[in-house]
Amino acid sequence: MLSVGPVFELINGFRRSKVLFTAVSLGIFDVLAGSETGLPAKELLRSLDTRAHSSRSEEGLERLLKGCASLKLLEPIVQTNRPILYRLTSMSRQYLTSQSPESMVGYIRHSNDVLYPLWSRLDASVLSGEACWTESFGRQNKDIFSSIYEGEGGVERFTQAMDAVATVAASHILQAVDLSWIRCMADLGGSSGALSAAFCERIPHLKSVVIELPHVIPIGQRLLARSNVSESIKARIHFSSGDFFASPEALPRDIDGIPINAYLLSRILHDWRDPLCLDLLRHLYTLLPSSIPSGVVICEMLLNDDGIGPVNANMQDLNMLAQTDGKERSLSEMRNLLEIAGFQRIEGYKTGSLLDVVVAYKT
Amino acid sequence: MLSVGPVFELINGFRRSKVLFTAVSLGIFDVLAGSETGLPAKELLRSLDTRAHSSRSEEGLERLLKGCASLKLLEPIVQTNRPILYRLTSMSRQYLTSQSPESMVGYIRHSNDVLYPLWSRLDASVLSGEACWTESFGRQNKDIFSSIYEGEGGVERFTQAMDAVATVAASHILQAVDLSWIRCMADLGGSSGALSAAFCERIPHLKSVVIELPHVIPIGQRLLARSNVSESIKARIHFSSGDFFASPEALPRDIDGIPINAYLLSRILHDWRDPLCLDLLRHLYTLLPSSIPSGVVICEMLLNDDGIGPVNANMQDLNMLAQTDGKERSLSEMRNLLEIAGFQRIEGYKTGSLLDVVVAYKT
Repeated sequence: MLSVGPVFELINGFRRSKVLFTAVSLGIFDVLAGSETGLPAKELLRSLDTRAHSSRSEEGLERLLKGCASLKLLEPIVQTNRPILYRLTSMSRQYLTSQSPESMVGYIRHSNDVLYPLWSRLDASVLSGEACWTESFGRQNKDIFSSIYEGEGGVERFTQAMDAVATVAASHILQAVDLSWIRCMADLGGSSGALSAAFCERIPHLKSVVIELPHVIPIGQRLLARSNVSESIKARIHFSSGDFFASPEALPRDIDGIPINAYLLSRILHDWRDPLCLDLLRHLYTLLPSSIPSGVVICEMLLNDDGIGPVNANMQDLNMLAQTDGKERSLSEMRNLLEIAGFQRIEGYKTGSLLDVVVAYKT
Repeated sequence: MLSVGPVFELINGFRRSKVLFTAVSLGIFDVLAGSETGLPAKELLRSLDTRAHSSRSEEGLERLLKGCASLKLLEPIVQTNRPILYRLTSMSRQYLTSQSPESMVGYIRHSNDVLYPLWSRLDASVLSGEACWTESFGRQNKDIFSSIYEGEGGVERFTQAMDAVATVAASHILQAVDLSWIRCMADLGGSSGALSAAFCERIPHLKSVVIELPHVIPIGQRLLARSNVSESIKARIHFSSGDFFASPEALPRDIDGIPINAYLLSRILHDWRDPLCLDLLRHLYTLLPSSIPSGVVICEMLLNDDGIGPVNANMQDLNMLAQTDGKERSLSEMRNLLEIAGFQRIEGYKTGSLLDVVVAYKT
C-alpha cells in the first residue's frame, strides 16, 4: 500500500498557506521584528493591531504561533513552567517582515485577500476557460485589471505584490543573463519600478521609464520614493503614463534623447491571449532601433515544452486562468510568438526563482 | 541570501490543494479509472458530468490536467503531434477514485466544500479563540454539528469524510497497538462504522455498536451497506442512536448480553473543551467492567508535548479552532484528562498516519 502522505500534504496545503497568510495579516512578524529575545503570546497580543476585532484570545493566538513554529516560520524558545517565547527565524525576518528589502508581504496580502477567495471557484474557470471573478466575487467587470484593482487600496496591494516578486527574482534574472547591452529601457507595466531599480543597480548608467496606467503612476511613484532604493538609483527611474495595449504607438522611443534599446515585459504577456501579445511584440519590434543592440526582455515563469512542470509554473498558469485572459507559456511558445513578431535571436533562461527570463534581440 | 523557495511553497499551498480538489469534484479520476490507456482532454471532457455548467472548455480542462500531471496526480503520455493522454497513477487510483477501498474522496469533498471557505476567516478564530462559521458563512448556528451538517447532503459528506480518514488510518492503528483484548466495543460517533469494520477484520469475534445521533444513523447504515466491507463483518456491526454528551448514562453496557469492554473515541474529544471531555471520560470509566480487561481507545492526532509539531497535527489543531469548540492534544494532555477520570495505565502510540492512538485501561 502506497503512503497516503503525499495526498494528505496536498489536501492540507491550503491550511499551511492560511497559517502563513493569517500570521502576516495580523502583523505578527512585524511585531516580532522589534524583539531580539522573542515574545510570549500574551505580550504579542498586546502589540497587535486588533482594533478591528472586538475580542482578543491569547489561546487562539498561541495556537497560531505554534502552527507557525511547526512550519519553521518562528523559532520557539520552550522553557519549563514559563510561557513559550516566539522569535523570528532568518527566513521570516528576510521574507515576512514589511520592512525587509526582500519582503514578500505584498504578495502574501494579494494571495490572502484576492487569490485565495478567487481560487474557490477554480472549477468554473476550468470548465469555461475564462476568469472566475463573477463566480467567486459576484463581480461583473469589463476588464481584468478593474477586478484586480477593485476595493480600497487595491492598486497599492497589487503593486506591492508585484514589487515583492520582482525584487526577489531580480538577482536571479541578472545572474542568469548578461543584460549589460541595455542602455535605456522602458519597463512596461512596471508598477513602482522595482525591477527597473534592480537592473539599474547592476547596469551602470542605465535609465528606465516605467509605463503605467494613469491611476497607478502616483502609487508607483510613492512606493518607489519610500522604498530602500538609493536616491541615485531613484533618479534614474522615470514614470510615464500610457496604455501600451490600446496605444502601443504612443510608447516612448527615448529618454532625454537617449534611444530606448530594450522593452521590459515582466509578467505582462501572461495576462493576455496570443493575438494581443503578438500585436504588442510587433509594435515593440518596430519601435526598437536597428543601429545598436536592442531587444525585448520577458520575465515570467517558463513551463516545460510539453506544458507539464515545473509545478509552480503550472500553478501560476492556473492562476492566470482564474484571474486573467492569459496563461504561462513554454520557451517554445514564446519563441513562436517572438519569431512571428520579427525577432531572430531568442534565448531563454530558467532561473529556478520566481521569474524566468527570455531575451529576444532585434539586432 | 536564503532561498525564497520554502516561503513560496507555503504561499502556493492553497493552489495545489485546489487543483486536487477541483479535479476530484469534476470527477476526473473516476472517469479515468475506466481507462487503461488514458484519455486526452477532449474525450475526458465529454465524459465529465458538467450538466451544472453551461460552458465547456477543452483548454481550461487541459490546463488543469497539466497541473495535475505536474503534481504527479496523473501520468501524462506525451506523443509528438498528438494530444497528451492522461492516465491514473497508482497513487491516484488508490486514494482519489470514489470506488477504491482507501478512497479519500469524501474527505477531499469536505475539505473543498466546507473547510476551504471556513478557513478564509481563520484570523477571526485566532483573535476570538472560537469557531468562525459566522464570519465565513454568515451562519448563526447553536452548535457546531448543525454547521458541519448544514446544506443538502451535509451529513453524508461529513460521514464519508470521516470514513475516508478512518479507513486509511485503521491499519496503522492496528499495527501500532495490540487491541486483541477487546471483545465487544461501542464506537462513539462512529459514522458508518468504518473504524469498527477495520477492527472487526483484525480481531476475531469482535462486535461493535456504533453510537450516533438519530439523523446520522440511517446514512451511516446505508454507507456501510454499500461499502466494500464483507457481509460477515457487516453482521457484527450494530447501530444505536444516542447523544453521548447529553446522556452518557444511556450508553449501552453490552451487546446481546456480552459486556462492552472498550469505548472507542475516534476524533470525538478533539471537538470539545476539557471539562466536557472529562465528564464523558468519567462516565465511560464508570460504565466499563472491572472483572475483565477494559478501557477506552482514543484515535486522534497527537501533538508533541510542547504543542509544536508534527505539522499536520498543528494544522488539525487550527482546523478544530476554526470549526469546533475543541483542539488537538498532546499525549501528556490526554494523560492528564484520563488520570483525572480514573484511568491508570495510559499508553500513546504515534502511527505516522492520519490518526494516532491512545489506550487507557481501567483494569
